[in-house]
Amino acid sequence: VKYKLLIDCSDAKGLMFEVTKILLDNDLNIEKNNEYVDNENSKFFMRTEFSGEVDIPNLKDKLSQKLPENSHISVVKAEKKNVIIMATKENHAIGDLLLKYDSGELNANVVCVISNYDSLKELVERFGIEYHSVNAQDMSREEHESKVMDIINKYECDYILLAKYMRILTPNFVKSYDSKIINIHHSFLPAFIGANPYKQAHERGVKIIGATAHFVTDDLDEGPIISQDVIAVDHNFTWKDMQRAGRSVEKHVFTKAVELVLDDRVFIHGNKTIIF
Amino acid sequence: VKYKLLIDCSDAKGLMFEVTKILLDNDLNIEKNNEYVDNENSKFFMRTEFSGEVDIPNLKDKLSQKLPENSHISVVKAEKKNVIIMATKENHAIGDLLLKYDSGELNANVVCVISNYDSLKELVERFGIEYHSVNAQDMSREEHESKVMDIINKYECDYILLAKYMRILTPNFVKSYDSKIINIHHSFLPAFIGANPYKQAHERGVKIIGATAHFVTDDLDEGPIISQDVIAVDHNFTWKDMQRAGRSVEKHVFTKAVELVLDDRVFIHGNKTIIF
Amino acid sequence: VKYKLLIDCSDAKGLMFEVTKILLDNDLNIEKNNEYVDNENSKFFMRTEFSGEVDIPNLKDKLSQKLPENSHISVVKAEKKNVIIMATKENHAIGDLLLKYDSGELNANVVCVISNYDSLKELVERFGIEYHSVNAQDMSREEHESKVMDIINKYECDYILLAKYMRILTPNFVKSYDSKIINIHHSFLPAFIGANPYKQAHERGVKIIGATAHFVTDDLDEGPIISQDVIAVDHNFTWKDMQRAGRSVEKHVFTKAVELVLDDRVFIHGNKTIIF
Amino acid sequence: VKYKLLIDCSDAKGLMFEVTKILLDNDLNIEKNNEYVDNENSKFFMRTEFSGEVDIPNLKDKLSQKLPENSHISVVKAEKKNVIIMATKENHAIGDLLLKYDSGELNANVVCVISNYDSLKELVERFGIEYHSVNAQDMSREEHESKVMDIINKYECDYILLAKYMRILTPNFVKSYDSKIINIHHSFLPAFIGANPYKQAHERGVKIIGATAHFVTDDLDEGPIISQDVIAVDHNFTWKDMQRAGRSVEKHVFTKAVELVLDDRVFIHGNKTIIF
Repeated sequence: VKYKLLIDCSDAKGLMFEVTKILLDNDLNIEKNNEYVDNENSKFFMRTEFSGEVDIPNLKDKLSQKLPENSHISVVKAEKKNVIIMATKENHAIGDLLLKYDSGELNANVVCVISNYDSLKELVERFGIEYHSVNAQDMSREEHESKVMDIINKYECDYILLAKYMRILTPNFVKSYDSKIINIHHSFLPAFIGANPYKQAHERGVKIIGATAHFVTDDLDEGPIISQDVIAVDHNFTWKDMQRAGRSVEKHVFTKAVELVLDDRVFIHGNKTIIF
Repeated sequence: VKYKLLIDCSDAKGLMFEVTKILLDNDLNIEKNNEYVDNENSKFFMRTEFSGEVDIPNLKDKLSQKLPENSHISVVKAEKKNVIIMATKENHAIGDLLLKYDSGELNANVVCVISNYDSLKELVERFGIEYHSVNAQDMSREEHESKVMDIINKYECDYILLAKYMRILTPNFVKSYDSKIINIHHSFLPAFIGANPYKQAHERGVKIIGATAHFVTDDLDEGPIISQDVIAVDHNFTWKDMQRAGRSVEKHVFTKAVELVLDDRVFIHGNKTIIF
Repeated sequence: VKYKLLIDCSDAKGLMFEVTKILLDNDLNIEKNNEYVDNENSKFFMRTEFSGEVDIPNLKDKLSQKLPENSHISVVKAEKKNVIIMATKENHAIGDLLLKYDSGELNANVVCVISNYDSLKELVERFGIEYHSVNAQDMSREEHESKVMDIINKYECDYILLAKYMRILTPNFVKSYDSKIINIHHSFLPAFIGANPYKQAHERGVKIIGATAHFVTDDLDEGPIISQDVIAVDHNFTWKDMQRAGRSVEKHVFTKAVELVLDDRVFIHGNKTIIF
Repeated sequence: VKYKLLIDCSDAKGLMFEVTKILLDNDLNIEKNNEYVDNENSKFFMRTEFSGEVDIPNLKDKLSQKLPENSHISVVKAEKKNVIIMATKENHAIGDLLLKYDSGELNANVVCVISNYDSLKELVERFGIEYHSVNAQDMSREEHESKVMDIINKYECDYILLAKYMRILTPNFVKSYDSKIINIHHSFLPAFIGANPYKQAHERGVKIIGATAHFVTDDLDEGPIISQDVIAVDHNFTWKDMQRAGRSVEKHVFTKAVELVLDDRVFIHGNKTIIF
């Protein structure tokens, strides 16, 4: 059986020795190991893939005895996570995930899709996935979100993937799924925060556009960045051309970020990410 | 003899026909041709490389009779321009230009270098180029610039290349060399405008950093962008590491932008550039 | 109504004048224009987007009177082309096209899909597209292809898109659809020609892998290249990891090449392409 | 004092535990740590930056008692290496290194430059570096190399950097400086092995060109790859344009590879590299 050990704690001498000793004493076999020390903030991060027979609570207990106080230690079985995809009308970001899900390449079960429109219903249902359409008209933001949350909470869900979900989330929603919401923003953050980044980019006359996948926090477009990429543009591009070209970047940046998170390779560290 | 014809005018029917007819009637041979129509603003841009024997004022006269009023028409001989490089302490952006100059690859004569420090004097003089050091201490911005302008104005100079010149220029300076100053900014504009962009980038936790070469206008970091490029970074990079990695991007973005301008391939169009 | 004029002929003086004159005389409005002269081989290429009312045979006739002998002149209406997709088992390259088709973004009608396996049948039929499975077992290459060609020939088809069709085509097949077959090769050609390029790349220890979209000719993997892109890899990648990462490049390189061809922006010039 | 510990050995259980235990027992502080296990070949690689007071032979002795037989263990002080640059006529690859050396950014002492021409003498001597010109005319390859080796062997030299040294080296030369010679090849290997890769690339009509930095082995252009990068080109590029554009990639790929090697971050593993 394969497991991942994830440690996030204050830095101290001998941490690697202590962890590797415990794994060795328990006859667990390290297959891959990564560490990072943030010297400035004296923090230690470690991700270990190991195999063997393990009693998880017992292992965590032994580790917490040797690691600094307030350490975050988790041991997760290498298995598929449950995800909910939220989207609005565009099919590219969600479509890329659905294709990977369909071929068994996505390390996740897509338990349902939630949208504020019907536009993607047909596409999603073709892939045998439940589609919940929650119309937002004539409704306060809070009312709408409460309906969405009712649906989410019916499922066991590890992550919420915003595949071009074009509504702003309230602090209450964000807090309810802390560190579990991943968004794709259609600009190379922090450039062009806010509405219609491609129009902004076109007006500014940039020669490169991009996309940013990030965890969602209360500060709109300010959450920890997971993945970014760019594509060259020139004066021939209208903003619609930029949007079209940008979609290709959006989807591969988003899918890459989702895959990293699903594989437990991303640590959140304040407003940044550590990615192994 | 080789020439470049540069036209920037209101769009109208038959412009290409008129221009190519005049070139043909004058027995001039088109070797390369590019046009761009900005439909939104109804503007036409054209750059033509041609060879033959030409009476420039006469050709411009014939063209202006057929082209819309207020057209900008220029015919330039394909020859080296004169440039002044301004720099402060870092040697990478200026060094890259000096090496190309030294091997005869730069399409320009570097007539002198001006700096607010002595740091680069030795390097520059090794390449047989005059170095003017204008110390800015105990001096108002205006006084300092006036001394710099005295030097610039002693030379015939087509472009001023700010190769990491770390002082802000006054509107008066910028106006005096309108559309002739090219700067390299150490961020992927419009992200991280202002001081110490690498520190800002590090704090934001971006996964890609970049550099931007642009014409200098009164709006700091807001001039027309000529060239941009990026490089991937990760959590292992301190802001000093980002700065080091960024220098490599800065220099190649800057050199590329300078080469495009020296080859008369860049039109300024409002706050944007058209590049053929 | 919008049209595209495509000219491919020997170079001569005054070509642009002649073409723009005829368009002007016929009251046709040039919206976008690109030319390229291959000086080495004295060849001229031109692509013009124009609008207006046009009698196509008449326009071609007028043009052929003024252009050099043996000129290739075509005038095509800006409308969707018909394409047949051929694939084997992998769903990423075909899936990316299907998603764009489904959202109306692909400038084409997918008239059917042909495969040597059943694997993609369900996916394709979900998108309302006919799926023809032609099993190749116990059959000569010629027999199999003859069955495939029977299907192709039932449709009006402008291009055949090989979206990871993993069978080698005979010269007869290639000749039958000359300049109409586009393939995606899973390497950065000409590196790693032949079977299993990711395994070859892994063994060679490259730090970048790529994909190449090209027209298919008799010389396997040697046809005119339309589009290429790459992605960084490192020692942590097994060849399976490279394959997974490569799929993301394959699909966007292939889709981009297909879009360029569908928009009549690609000229074949010997073993190369001119792309406007 | 800062050190780097480099281990390359057969894989075994508990290696990290043993190493970190010894470092801890010797009161040495791990600042950065990377490991890689090649499961296919059962090999373990580790690079550790640590600080403290250390008796190097003693530490190596303790480590070799606990690590598998035939382990390669080295402990190196973090200090500048000595390098010799060899070049021919082009100034870009060597120039980039000289500029970094001049500003103190290069983690090396350039002890001398050796060339088969005089072309770069003036440039190199401006930087205060000895220049040895060894003309190859009227001489066998062996005679010429023997003269070159006489010069090399007068210095203490950790690495030989071939900054566009355009002569083929004999097996004898390569063997004499095994794993110490770094070359920049002007193509995206393994594409366009051999002479004039830009001409080959132009003839093939590729849309991307690149450069490859690698250790030199007997198999020409087949040594372990350290770094690669690419740049987009199109049909407008003559092969000379490709060469010019390629130089920009060559120099930054080469400089990057050299910096990685100078920082002891590159392990050679058969025909591949592990880079931490």
